[in-house]
Amino acid sequence: MTENPSRQSFDPLQAAIDAKDSQAISEFLYNIEPAEARHAVSQLSDSDQSKLLESLSYENAAELVEDLPEAQAARVLQRLSVEDAAAILSELPSDEQADVMARLPESGASAILNAMPAAEARSTRQLMAYPPESAGGLMITEFLSYREDLTVGDVLDDLRVHAERYRSFDVQYAYIVADGGRLVGVLRLRDLLLSLPREPISTVMIRDPLRVRDDAPLQELERFFDRHSLLGVPAVDANGVLVGVVRSVDVEQAAEERSNRSFLKFMGIVGGEELRTMPLRYRSMRRLSWLTVNILLNIVAASVIAFHQDTLSAVIALAVFLPIISDMSGCSGNQAVAVSLRELTLGVIRPYELWRVLRKEAAVGVINGIVLGLLLGIVGWLWQGNIVLGAVVASALALNTLVAACFGGLIPLCLTATGQDPALASGPILTTITDMTGFFLVLSLAGAALPWLIQ
Amino acid sequence: MTENPSRQSFDPLQAAIDAKDSQAISEFLYNIEPAEARHAVSQLSDSDQSKLLESLSYENAAELVEDLPEAQAARVLQRLSVEDAAAILSELPSDEQADVMARLPESGASAILNAMPAAEARSTRQLMAYPPESAGGLMITEFLSYREDLTVGDVLDDLRVHAERYRSFDVQYAYIVADGGRLVGVLRLRDLLLSLPREPISTVMIRDPLRVRDDAPLQELERFFDRHSLLGVPAVDANGVLVGVVRSVDVEQAAEERSNRSFLKFMGIVGGEELRTMPLRYRSMRRLSWLTVNILLNIVAASVIAFHQDTLSAVIALAVFLPIISDMSGCSGNQAVAVSLRELTLGVIRPYELWRVLRKEAAVGVINGIVLGLLLGIVGWLWQGNIVLGAVVASALALNTLVAACFGGLIPLCLTATGQDPALASGPILTTITDMTGFFLVLSLAGAALPWLIQ
Repeated sequence: MTENPSRQSFDPLQAAIDAKDSQAISEFLYNIEPAEARHAVSQLSDSDQSKLLESLSYENAAELVEDLPEAQAARVLQRLSVEDAAAILSELPSDEQADVMARLPESGASAILNAMPAAEARSTRQLMAYPPESAGGLMITEFLSYREDLTVGDVLDDLRVHAERYRSFDVQYAYIVADGGRLVGVLRLRDLLLSLPREPISTVMIRDPLRVRDDAPLQELERFFDRHSLLGVPAVDANGVLVGVVRSVDVEQAAEERSNRSFLKFMGIVGGEELRTMPLRYRSMRRLSWLTVNILLNIVAASVIAFHQDTLSAVIALAVFLPIISDMSGCSGNQAVAVSLRELTLGVIRPYELWRVLRKEAAVGVINGIVLGLLLGIVGWLWQGNIVLGAVVASALALNTLVAACFGGLIPLCLTATGQDPALASGPILTTITDMTGFFLVLSLAGAALPWLIQ
Repeated sequence: MTENPSRQSFDPLQAAIDAKDSQAISEFLYNIEPAEARHAVSQLSDSDQSKLLESLSYENAAELVEDLPEAQAARVLQRLSVEDAAAILSELPSDEQADVMARLPESGASAILNAMPAAEARSTRQLMAYPPESAGGLMITEFLSYREDLTVGDVLDDLRVHAERYRSFDVQYAYIVADGGRLVGVLRLRDLLLSLPREPISTVMIRDPLRVRDDAPLQELERFFDRHSLLGVPAVDANGVLVGVVRSVDVEQAAEERSNRSFLKFMGIVGGEELRTMPLRYRSMRRLSWLTVNILLNIVAASVIAFHQDTLSAVIALAVFLPIISDMSGCSGNQAVAVSLRELTLGVIRPYELWRVLRKEAAVGVINGIVLGLLLGIVGWLWQGNIVLGAVVASALALNTLVAACFGGLIPLCLTATGQDPALASGPILTTITDMTGFFLVLSLAGAALPWLIQ
């Protein structure tokens, strides 16, 4: 750790891996917090990470894999033999298993599936078929279900016999199914407390319970848990067959991950996730894919300047103000973009409400434009001692702030309405528009006022 | 609704409010999804929103307030009489009550507290004293607790008697306390199933259970639920007295809100939240507070151009490239900022690991700098037919991409290490640095190559 000689805390792990000392590795990892373990592991090279997993029991390796960011977990598992990878994945909860598998390349994933027991591979394949941000992609398949013809006593007996296995299930409901697995009821375990053992569960259960379809998207699940203060909800397929349980905590977590991905996309990280442990080539290529689009758009926007070179050569001081107007309009526009994205997520505006957003942003744009324009105008006037120059940059910035606020507010709505991802495209579209209008306003106003600018 | 004549769906609400028809209002609101209700209400003017709440029962008004974004809820409650506001707030779950109260101005909050029953006001004041992103701020105070000297039968009796009241509690644990309220155990309700009524609960409960301190910050709670797959954890004060229960779903939700706030702050929304229903003056002032800092920083950065005006007048074509280099460096830097913020949240880097981040970003910066520099250089060469001009802009962009990636990666770490909020300050600091270095590189390289640029 040449970069940080004062912190030696992760050396024991590296030393244990180099010595292939499984005992020391396990001891080290299980005496620290998961966050520490995650950090320690992320410091290792890819090959050391896979050596690490190989030296642990499948169960312990799975616990470690659960703590890692999914993208990293997938990368490390890929370096293992398919047998080891399959065995470790088998130890993960069903939803996490499918999430990690989904991040493996197709060929890697099917090799691992072939190495899994047939039944497990089948159920994993089924989970992988769901989009990750749907009920099917988020649900767990570890839950209690009983046939509707049992009695309270039968259920209590089963709970006693399998108490240990169920302990890991987060159980507070059991789901009651008819022939063919169709969901017919939910049994609150605490209601068992209040019932006699000989009662049929069909009289104790809640009939026709709340449920979601397995293809319900994340936003619908968020709304469901907004409305119903429940810890989980059963998910059923098109035939009403119970296929899993969606927990509210997993929905909240998926919503948080979506926010994080949006933020990264907005900042030009195309896939919505980058970790510096990823290979350099991959990181560089993905960043470049977005930067090259941007540089082309920038060149288009700057061509407006090229068309006004005569004005610019006549009043070279204007060159100082062009980047300022470009940057400030970007800032004003981004504020409006952020508020639109936020309001869309909250559901307080809809993508078709363009006029409402336009009115609200225009009002802010006018006020902020006047204030910022005056500020910049005074700077221009004092610096060059020319009030007309001040007036030119003031009016250009004022008008362009208005343009930026309006477009910034509207672009995310239009992209959403047309099914585009507003996080990835709003920024480049906005700055291209505001740059072009900004450069045009400064240079054409200056062109019109040229006699008073050249003294 | 002049802006959208094709959608009349919210007119019934406006009509019912104008007619002061409480019946029609209730019917309208309770036949639509909460998301629809939230949207319908956000379309109303402030005074109509408060009229709306006044016309509903306190219980129904509270349900509606729960669906609103907290900032909006606080604004609407402020317009009501303190008695009405107090009565509606009393109907909210304890954690939400404190959250909304915390967003009221001090004077408004204490007036409302004075109108509440003394015991409730006291407990609300206590909750409000906790930072909102701490265990105390997130916990609920509706939970089951029993003295340790009871038997299983006593608990079952109590559960039967109060079944209805407990139904809303999300119960799956009961907490066992000693004299003075000190937490001594947790009772899993399903373990009651397996026990005889005469057994003392002290033999059934889990002794010395997991707990968190009431002042534990959000990040610690996230780590807790990372490590322990639980639905909730008891929170205790400095004396070990049980004060509430923190649910994992509330922790996940708070984490999502924090992500959203960070995003808005990064985009220049100072408080981390703005809704277009907020008063214009307030929205405009808050956005301006950030924009004026930015314009001053921009003027400082652009002054670099002013110092090189001679070079610029000699080679006016350079003026076209200045905004491109400024914008592209901002893009490259923002990518690195985003990855650093993400890795800090995930805990895979620590604020002191500057060298590690610098190495990783420098590698990407070199590659991307060369690619982008070549691209822009070729454009410059072809456009002006001057290969030296191409070389000047190519080298300036290449070097500045490297500078931007490195600073972008490091700034969030430095801000975090010094206790600043990286979301709010990273952007302006980054672009000021990269603008200054970018302008300096273009103009000083051009100055050095001046004889070959003027032909």
